[in-house]
Amino acid sequence: MVPFYAAKTRIMSNIGNENKETKEKITSRAEDFSRWYLDVIAAADMADYAPVKGCMVIKPYGYAIWENIQKILDGMFKASGHKNAYFPIFIPESFLKREAEHVEGFSPELAVVTYAGGKKLEENLVVRPTSETIIYDSFSKWIHSWRDLPLLINQWANVVRWEMRTRLFLRTTEFLWQEGHTAHATHEEAQEEVLRMLAVYRRFMEDYLAIPVIEGVKSDTEKFAGALKTFTIEALMQDKKSLQCGTSHDLGQNFAKVFNVKFLDNTGTEQYVWQTSWGVSTRLIGALIMVHGDDKGIIVPPRIAPTQLAFVPIWKNDAEKEATKDAAVRLANSLPGNSYEIDSRDIRPAARYYEWERKGVPLRVEIGPRDIENHQAVLVRRDTGEKIFVSEAEFAKRITEVLEAIQQNLFERAKKFREENIHEVKTWDEFRQTIENEGGFVRTGWCGSAECEAKIKEATRATVRCMPAANNGTGGVCVYCGKPSQHNPLFAQAY
Amino acid sequence: MVPFYAAKTRIMSNIGNENKETKEKITSRAEDFSRWYLDVIAAADMADYAPVKGCMVIKPYGYAIWENIQKILDGMFKASGHKNAYFPIFIPESFLKREAEHVEGFSPELAVVTYAGGKKLEENLVVRPTSETIIYDSFSKWIHSWRDLPLLINQWANVVRWEMRTRLFLRTTEFLWQEGHTAHATHEEAQEEVLRMLAVYRRFMEDYLAIPVIEGVKSDTEKFAGALKTFTIEALMQDKKSLQCGTSHDLGQNFAKVFNVKFLDNTGTEQYVWQTSWGVSTRLIGALIMVHGDDKGIIVPPRIAPTQLAFVPIWKNDAEKEATKDAAVRLANSLPGNSYEIDSRDIRPAARYYEWERKGVPLRVEIGPRDIENHQAVLVRRDTGEKIFVSEAEFAKRITEVLEAIQQNLFERAKKFREENIHEVKTWDEFRQTIENEGGFVRTGWCGSAECEAKIKEATRATVRCMPAANNGTGGVCVYCGKPSQHNPLFAQAY
Repeated sequence: MVPFYAAKTRIMSNIGNENKETKEKITSRAEDFSRWYLDVIAAADMADYAPVKGCMVIKPYGYAIWENIQKILDGMFKASGHKNAYFPIFIPESFLKREAEHVEGFSPELAVVTYAGGKKLEENLVVRPTSETIIYDSFSKWIHSWRDLPLLINQWANVVRWEMRTRLFLRTTEFLWQEGHTAHATHEEAQEEVLRMLAVYRRFMEDYLAIPVIEGVKSDTEKFAGALKTFTIEALMQDKKSLQCGTSHDLGQNFAKVFNVKFLDNTGTEQYVWQTSWGVSTRLIGALIMVHGDDKGIIVPPRIAPTQLAFVPIWKNDAEKEATKDAAVRLANSLPGNSYEIDSRDIRPAARYYEWERKGVPLRVEIGPRDIENHQAVLVRRDTGEKIFVSEAEFAKRITEVLEAIQQNLFERAKKFREENIHEVKTWDEFRQTIENEGGFVRTGWCGSAECEAKIKEATRATVRCMPAANNGTGGVCVYCGKPSQHNPLFAQAY
Repeated sequence: MVPFYAAKTRIMSNIGNENKETKEKITSRAEDFSRWYLDVIAAADMADYAPVKGCMVIKPYGYAIWENIQKILDGMFKASGHKNAYFPIFIPESFLKREAEHVEGFSPELAVVTYAGGKKLEENLVVRPTSETIIYDSFSKWIHSWRDLPLLINQWANVVRWEMRTRLFLRTTEFLWQEGHTAHATHEEAQEEVLRMLAVYRRFMEDYLAIPVIEGVKSDTEKFAGALKTFTIEALMQDKKSLQCGTSHDLGQNFAKVFNVKFLDNTGTEQYVWQTSWGVSTRLIGALIMVHGDDKGIIVPPRIAPTQLAFVPIWKNDAEKEATKDAAVRLANSLPGNSYEIDSRDIRPAARYYEWERKGVPLRVEIGPRDIENHQAVLVRRDTGEKIFVSEAEFAKRITEVLEAIQQNLFERAKKFREENIHEVKTWDEFRQTIENEGGFVRTGWCGSAECEAKIKEATRATVRCMPAANNGTGGVCVYCGKPSQHNPLFAQAY
């Protein structure tokens, strides 16, 4: 057998495609946040636009983050009893049309196959924008009795929504996601599932991506086309706009009725099932960038980082090069399974530092000849820039501690920022001024009418992001019309 | 937070969708192999046809096998220096047309998006049948100098080929696969990569799927559209037909030239890269079924099995039910990480036995009240039906040994069958009779002309499966035309 490349040793020499001394200038966040966003993606070599309108190419470093997201979420889904399956990418056009709200919501965004195998198709096929219809057709065959319930399915897949304005990771014509689809015997059980999966998302966002989220219900205007109720988790980006990071839908019996998903209950009576669906997508990578990144580039939280440590040996001659590289290998081997790279490329140290900073690697480990003499290494935190001298003897222990500290700091920092940017307002003037001058979340009273919601959006571009369960909405007045409030939502401008 | 389902304990009660006492009759292999194939897929609940022509729904049990295939192969790809990335599902029609052979090969099978976002597209988009063209467009932007080489990329994706005659897993309109794409500075390095990945496939097939394969070069007629040379691994199914299980292509500079994938070599001269691509797909699940299955259902080799052991407690009353279930839990907890299910459903034992047999779970563990008394359990091998009594003290050790023995036996059995079905023939009469009466692989001389190849196929439906490197093809005569032979290929009827 032909020998493998020496990839497993993770020692970078002058082989491989990551040794360009990239000198891309990153626009500062203050100067132009949108430009900054694209700059840091390019500087970290994460993704690029494809030659197909609105599609993206996810490059290895961006994809490695997605793989980690998948691995952790998939474990959480399985631990909560869900099984993966795969359904066709093509949906007969007639399927999509069966649920009226659903087709109305998705029609403008569909990509349609009309020719295949050299012939015009008898029925057009839609490239899935989401899979409720095709999956519930299967469910109608799989479910017979109450014994088949709950049915708890998840799918990892690509989906296509023809978007007018696209932005890498946040909104692309094709994107990668997971979509959970479940069926239950009672509405109560389905509602529990909706909240269970919202809680899974929340835990993932906070414990792994270090992104604090606010959960709540969407307004009718903003809910999923075909759902009774949509729950969302919303996060605040550094430009003080909100990003919807994941949704969990109570579908009621809407789809069950049109796809005839029935079961015999334990009294022998035929009933429609109660359904849920829930999803997160590659958009989460956009959230990670916009919540944690700084003017040097992205910052990847340690628990999700494809590379947690970058060892940068520093030398003046060949003997020192070998010695510092060996020292790095020795230290790396003492670690309890952390992911790392040893960067011994013949590039000046500063250039190597910058590269790992741009890639957002949480910890850099510098090792020079003097450090070897002193049996130490120098850690540099990506989040704070702090330099920490650690002894070789304590290396593994300290790495674990410092990575944990970085993870916590990123979360706390983002949470503090979010808390500082939640505003409580009473009057329409305050509302407008806060949205225009401050940004962030604005909590206020709302009568619940779609009319006021539309007027508010028209005037300020702010929308109801969510109605948290904890906020009692009654007792106040609607910020727009002054009638008694029914809800106390968070408004914000959003992606 | 809403509590999770008790899925992690892996104790099946009357909840979940797998408790149907399926009584599907499985056609015997001798009676009708094609029917048997579909019967065992249905009996194991692996997959089903979708409402979209030729597409399949991969059900949780089938998908769990695919996940294991992915996990192991992905580890092998990464260990050999490859990184994952993701490219768009849509390919502009003009891209596909740039390489003449390539478009000719794939044109009849394309699904084409002509409308999107409610409008007719200016340029049609093809749903990827394979991604050489869209990926090499990116490569042309990523590669600048010899330092960027080799570029070693892999993609896990769905692809679409509009097939006339489909069969679950073996040939479906949409299927899941991985496609490796690499670029190298020299043809020699690219050729090494082609063989390296063929060897990875071979190792995976033999060590995990327990399927012996023969590797060799495809004839020009059978090679990948756009390649200089295609290498294949071929396996013999129990109906004595050959199945192409994976291919690895030497693309030469064909695509590099049309997509302008160039690099500056270390003398500063601009050169085209040398490329390879290689892939395996969900078809491997079809191979697994047809190589190992018997008249009771599929048999999944332990190293790839989603469930390696099925514990079946046997009881006559509630106290015994609890005791035998507890004993199963105790034994299961002593295992070193094996995957298992504890099947305590209120169904008679025989029905539970059959279900795990149909699912091809390699080992069944029976535990009755008497076994508890005797501090033992009874193992039943799925491959041989052998019953093995093991003491509780030795349980974990014996499970490891017996699973290993099953893995080896499946491989040896398949290899013996394959060896018994390779025939050496000299004359055309012998050739025809062997193909018609015996089946299997037929090794013989071939002049190398596409004419003889076509005549042989027309007369016998047998094709050149591969030309193994070890077979010296010269010195004999062509079995069809009698001219001096250039090759000594293996012919067979194939899927």
